[in-house]
Amino acid sequence: MATSGEDDLIARYFRPLAKAAGSFALSDDAAVLPEGATDLVLTTDAIVEGVHFLPEDPPDMLARKALRVNLSDLAAKGASPAGFLLTLALRRVDAAWLAGFAKALGEDAEQFGCPLLGGDTVSTPGPLMISITALGRVSSGTMVRRAGAQPGDVVVVSGTIGDAVLGLDILKGRVPAQQLGPDLAAHAINRYRIPQPRTTLAAAIAADASAAMDVSDGLAGDLAKLCAVSGVSAAINLADIPLSDATRVALSKGLIDLETLVSGGDDYEILCTVSEVNWPRLHDSAKAARIAVMAIGRIIAGREPPTFRDDKGRAVSLGRTSYSHF
Amino acid sequence: MATSGEDDLIARYFRPLAKAAGSFALSDDAAVLPEGATDLVLTTDAIVEGVHFLPEDPPDMLARKALRVNLSDLAAKGASPAGFLLTLALRRVDAAWLAGFAKALGEDAEQFGCPLLGGDTVSTPGPLMISITALGRVSSGTMVRRAGAQPGDVVVVSGTIGDAVLGLDILKGRVPAQQLGPDLAAHAINRYRIPQPRTTLAAAIAADASAAMDVSDGLAGDLAKLCAVSGVSAAINLADIPLSDATRVALSKGLIDLETLVSGGDDYEILCTVSEVNWPRLHDSAKAARIAVMAIGRIIAGREPPTFRDDKGRAVSLGRTSYSHF
Repeated sequence: MATSGEDDLIARYFRPLAKAAGSFALSDDAAVLPEGATDLVLTTDAIVEGVHFLPEDPPDMLARKALRVNLSDLAAKGASPAGFLLTLALRRVDAAWLAGFAKALGEDAEQFGCPLLGGDTVSTPGPLMISITALGRVSSGTMVRRAGAQPGDVVVVSGTIGDAVLGLDILKGRVPAQQLGPDLAAHAINRYRIPQPRTTLAAAIAADASAAMDVSDGLAGDLAKLCAVSGVSAAINLADIPLSDATRVALSKGLIDLETLVSGGDDYEILCTVSEVNWPRLHDSAKAARIAVMAIGRIIAGREPPTFRDDKGRAVSLGRTSYSHF
Repeated sequence: MATSGEDDLIARYFRPLAKAAGSFALSDDAAVLPEGATDLVLTTDAIVEGVHFLPEDPPDMLARKALRVNLSDLAAKGASPAGFLLTLALRRVDAAWLAGFAKALGEDAEQFGCPLLGGDTVSTPGPLMISITALGRVSSGTMVRRAGAQPGDVVVVSGTIGDAVLGLDILKGRVPAQQLGPDLAAHAINRYRIPQPRTTLAAAIAADASAAMDVSDGLAGDLAKLCAVSGVSAAINLADIPLSDATRVALSKGLIDLETLVSGGDDYEILCTVSEVNWPRLHDSAKAARIAVMAIGRIIAGREPPTFRDDKGRAVSLGRTSYSHF
């Protein structure tokens, strides 16, 4: 029997990652996930060469990014990872590329407790594309939605905002790395390349957040989406938006502006809302999980887009609030 | 707020399809599927322009094909559809194309009881790609695997074999349609373009098959895969392989050979094995579901690839047993 190239490729690179019983070591047409007294949370995100990543980006970085953007969605929904399906569209079979990709994917699957369940490998004459569908679990009926924010709720973000867009600007030559210094530049680039899904914050989000989503298309635009679905508005203090040393220095040197940081994509932090009563508990849970969380404003009644105020209380207009690939 | 093109596109074309409660009308980052006393069956298949379909193929046909190849996997695993996630990589936003695509996708989702749960829409500079992850349900522990075929089991296929490869050969000009006649040619082309997932056979497969898979890469190659995973061999009678009028006439006129029919792809029929004791019941269930099933041979002990014999009992060598896009 002629063994097809796809079978060889799967056996060699991806079978070692298929450790879940329900993946049947990728020997079947489908995978099984036993159900329980939980809800399954499903999310899917694809990344395309030349659109979401650069052709020269290394395969290990792409593997991590493709999986982590999905893990970030699960975390923001309060879900713990259960497994993932991988669809890989390849222009050619490049052993070194695949080995690097599979190794990093396996490491991340292990680290985040999210095993490979199955997938599909297809040939394409076009750009490389990596599409992942991730599955997670929440207690029945408890998935945290974009809808649910109430007037009076505290608006909270994890980590720091804007590092990824600064990193991308450095990579694209729009911000000169030498003006920032090698350490801060490396930090920003790394934040662009390798998202840090806030998986360890998921339980706290599930317990206390009234609404949540991950920040992937820019804080301002994503907050506007959350508010629109929740039927509310928000008042945000720009001075409270958490910044890293890298973005702080870049801002102070005029290398980037705050609008870019707040509207740039790829943060992969969690944006959530929490009642005033639950906020101290969420704060403590985050501290225990060693993830910084910061209150940046309040949900208010109304249907207008969120407003952003500077440290003197003046409204700042953010013209470009969301990044779109279309 | 600037609304992104992706949001508009989703709201306009795909929100009407998101009828399941857990899809939240595509307003969230994830979908929810309530779990129960069942197992979830997961499968994913992608189709790429220029590889799995022709650039001139109409959008309604692509929508149906993309969903149905996944529904075919679910049916072969004995699973009933629960829903699907769609990833669409588009070169440009073409309203007429999207409208045709979404309409057909919605019709099929309705017909097969498999609602849209969520998805991702990305821009690509390359070929159009449609990737679908479908979810189904089986009673706990009952997913029918490729593994499980036993010596003595009857080898069964549904429907007819080889129509799709004949249809593709006609479309590619390798078989002249006029020699076959318009009705038979149209039948074969339709079989290539629009798979008929055997969803109504799923319950019978779950109840009685010892192993099963759908025939997507050619009967001979797919049977070899099933035998390899089950650790058995098979003896197949070529004369028992069910053919349509179209393939029968094409064969008799020398327009195509049996090897091509048996090794060509895109049949999307079910190949399964069933014990001699259960075979009459599977046959009756299929009859009740109005799907033809045919016994084409037996599983035998051994590790050799399956053997195919002609009506005089002579072994026929099938050199090319599987179709691979790599």
